[in-house]
Amino acid sequence: MNEFALIRQYFERQPAPLPAGHPQSLLPLPASTGPAAESLVKLGIGDDCALLDPVPPGQQLAISTDMLVAGRHFFEGTDPAAIGHKALAVNLSDLAAMGARPVGFTLALALPTADAAWLQGFADGLFRLATRAACPLIGGDTTRGPLNISITVLGQVPATHALRRDGARVGDAIWVSGPLGAAALAVARRSQGQPVPDAAARRLDWPEPRLAAGLGLAGVASAAMDISDGLAGDLGHLLTASGRRQGLSLGAELWEDRLPLDPVLRESGVAHDEALQLALHGGDDYELLFTAPTAQTDTILQCWPDARMIGRIVAESAMLLVDAKGQSRPLAARGHDHFST
Amino acid sequence: MNEFALIRQYFERQPAPLPAGHPQSLLPLPASTGPAAESLVKLGIGDDCALLDPVPPGQQLAISTDMLVAGRHFFEGTDPAAIGHKALAVNLSDLAAMGARPVGFTLALALPTADAAWLQGFADGLFRLATRAACPLIGGDTTRGPLNISITVLGQVPATHALRRDGARVGDAIWVSGPLGAAALAVARRSQGQPVPDAAARRLDWPEPRLAAGLGLAGVASAAMDISDGLAGDLGHLLTASGRRQGLSLGAELWEDRLPLDPVLRESGVAHDEALQLALHGGDDYELLFTAPTAQTDTILQCWPDARMIGRIVAESAMLLVDAKGQSRPLAARGHDHFST
Repeated sequence: MNEFALIRQYFERQPAPLPAGHPQSLLPLPASTGPAAESLVKLGIGDDCALLDPVPPGQQLAISTDMLVAGRHFFEGTDPAAIGHKALAVNLSDLAAMGARPVGFTLALALPTADAAWLQGFADGLFRLATRAACPLIGGDTTRGPLNISITVLGQVPATHALRRDGARVGDAIWVSGPLGAAALAVARRSQGQPVPDAAARRLDWPEPRLAAGLGLAGVASAAMDISDGLAGDLGHLLTASGRRQGLSLGAELWEDRLPLDPVLRESGVAHDEALQLALHGGDDYELLFTAPTAQTDTILQCWPDARMIGRIVAESAMLLVDAKGQSRPLAARGHDHFST
Repeated sequence: MNEFALIRQYFERQPAPLPAGHPQSLLPLPASTGPAAESLVKLGIGDDCALLDPVPPGQQLAISTDMLVAGRHFFEGTDPAAIGHKALAVNLSDLAAMGARPVGFTLALALPTADAAWLQGFADGLFRLATRAACPLIGGDTTRGPLNISITVLGQVPATHALRRDGARVGDAIWVSGPLGAAALAVARRSQGQPVPDAAARRLDWPEPRLAAGLGLAGVASAAMDISDGLAGDLGHLLTASGRRQGLSLGAELWEDRLPLDPVLRESGVAHDEALQLALHGGDDYELLFTAPTAQTDTILQCWPDARMIGRIVAESAMLLVDAKGQSRPLAARGHDHFST
C-alpha cells in the first residue's frame, strides 16, 4: 500500500464529534463554560497546510507537542489502540493543564511497515479519543522509520484565564485532580515481567486527559500543569517557574496523609512506603497538579469533586513531606528524565 | 546532561530576528506585503503549552507538520547543522506553498544520545533559518530514541489569498519557482557512493523555502504546492485535487524545453534524458509548483523573476510531456512514496 492510499484509508475518514452532554464526552456541557465552540477548521488534511479561522476575540491559541517512542513511552507489543489513545491523550493533557478547549491536532507518524491491523487499531484508539475531546485531525505526515508518534495539539483559552505554571504564590493550596501511583505500579510490574492489575494497566495505557477539570479551573487556579514526570518533579518545576516570576525562592509542604494514593496500590498489596514512592515519583497518571488561593476551595470541589488538596506553597525554598504526626522530611524533586535513564 | 538542562542549553536561547530588509531575510520587505506582523507569541517554551494571540481579522492560521527520519530524509553522517536547517526548511516550504507568513514552530526531537557537538550544530542550523524566516521556536519535546525530528509550523495568511492546491482551472499556466533536479542528482550520486557536486549537495542539504515567492503569489496564483515528491507526482496531486473540486478530470501538458533543469546537471555531465528524469521525478528541491491564469504572467515575473512557465492545464485527464518539435508522450505521475521503496 502506498503512502497516499494509507493516509486515505486510515486517517481521512473521521468519526463525527459527540453531541453535547454525551456521557463519553470529555468536555463539560457548553452551559457551564459558555456556548459550544464552532469548529475553527476551514481546511483539513490533504493540502500543504491546514487552515483555521482565528480564535474568537479575547481568546488565545494554546499549542503543545509530545513525541512517543516505542520501548520508552510504551512497551513493545502494547495494543495499538492504546498507543493511538495515549499519543493523543498526553497532548490533550497539556491543553487541560492550560485550561484550554481542544481545536484540532496534527499527527506525524513513522512506521517500520504499513501493517493494516496495527494501523486500524491505532486509528481506532486515536479517533475514539479525538471524538470524545471534539478534537479533529487536521493534518499530518507519514513516513517509514522506527515507530514514532509525534502529535501537536491546538486549543483555545480565554487570554486572562490561561493556567500557566508560574502563577503560584505563598499560601496557595496545592491540589491534584485525582489518584496517583497506579500507572507507576503498572510500569514497575511490567518492567519486571510480573502481572499487572487491570486498574493499573488502564491508568498507564488509557490515561484520561482532564479536560473538563482544566476548563473548570481556568480563571480559578493560580497555576497548573499536568503530572507527566511525577508529582515531586513536576511540583519542583512549578515552584521554580513561579518563584522566578516573582523573584523569590518558593517551596512546598505536602501532607502525606492527604496524598490520594490510587486504591489499586493497597488492593495489590503494595506496602505504604512503596505506594508513597510511586505516587510521589512515578509519572504517567496525567492528573493535573494545580495551586489556588484557599478561598477557591469550594469552587474547585464543585467543578471537580475528585480534586484533593495535598499541601501548600511556602516561602522557604524546599519541598517537605509532612506526616500525620507533623514530622517533616525533605522531598527530592526527582522526576523522570529521558536522558538519565 | 538531563533533559531539562539540555533543553535550556540548546533550545531556550534564540537569536533575534533579522531587521527588515536584511539581505539574509527570507521574507520580502514589509512595504511590499503590508506592515510587518507583530509577534503573536505571548508565551513560548517552558509551560505545558505555548500561547499565541489570535491572527488579525481576515487572516487564517496555516499549520503543517513534517517528520524527518535518519537514513530516509537525510544520509547518516550529514552535517547536523544541515539537518537542523532542512527539518525546518521543509516545513517552511509548506507555509510558502500556502502563501503564509511564518508565526512560529514546535520541535519534537528523539535522540539516541545527548551528544553536545551534534546538538550544537543542529541548533545552529535550525535557528539560523528560524531567524531568517522570522519564525521562533515556541515549544517542543525531547526524548531518547532513534533520531527523529518532527516539526509543526504555524503561519498566517489572508483568508481570501491562501494558496490551496485545488484551485487550478483549464487554461491556467503551470509554473515552477526555480530550477529542478539538482537535489535528486545529489541523492543519486550519494546513494552510489559517488562524489556529489557542491551545487547539488547544497540543494539537497540546504533547501531554501520560497517564502517570499509564496507571499507574492498569494492572491495571484490559482493553486500552489511545494515540490517535495517530484514535479510529476506533485502535479498529479494538484490535478486530482483541483479536478475533484470542480467535478472534472483535469490533465496537464508540460513543455520539455521550458523545464528549468538545474545548471549543475549539465555541468556535471548528466545526459539530457537523465537530467529530465531527475527534474520530473526527483524530489527534494522544494521549489513551488503553481498555476495561474495567463493574465497574471507579468505580475508573477515581477514578484519572483526566477519563476518559469512550464506548461498548462488541459481538460483531457492525462499528463503529457511535449518536446520542442511538438511531439508529446505520456508522463507518469510517479513521485516518491515512503512505503514503496
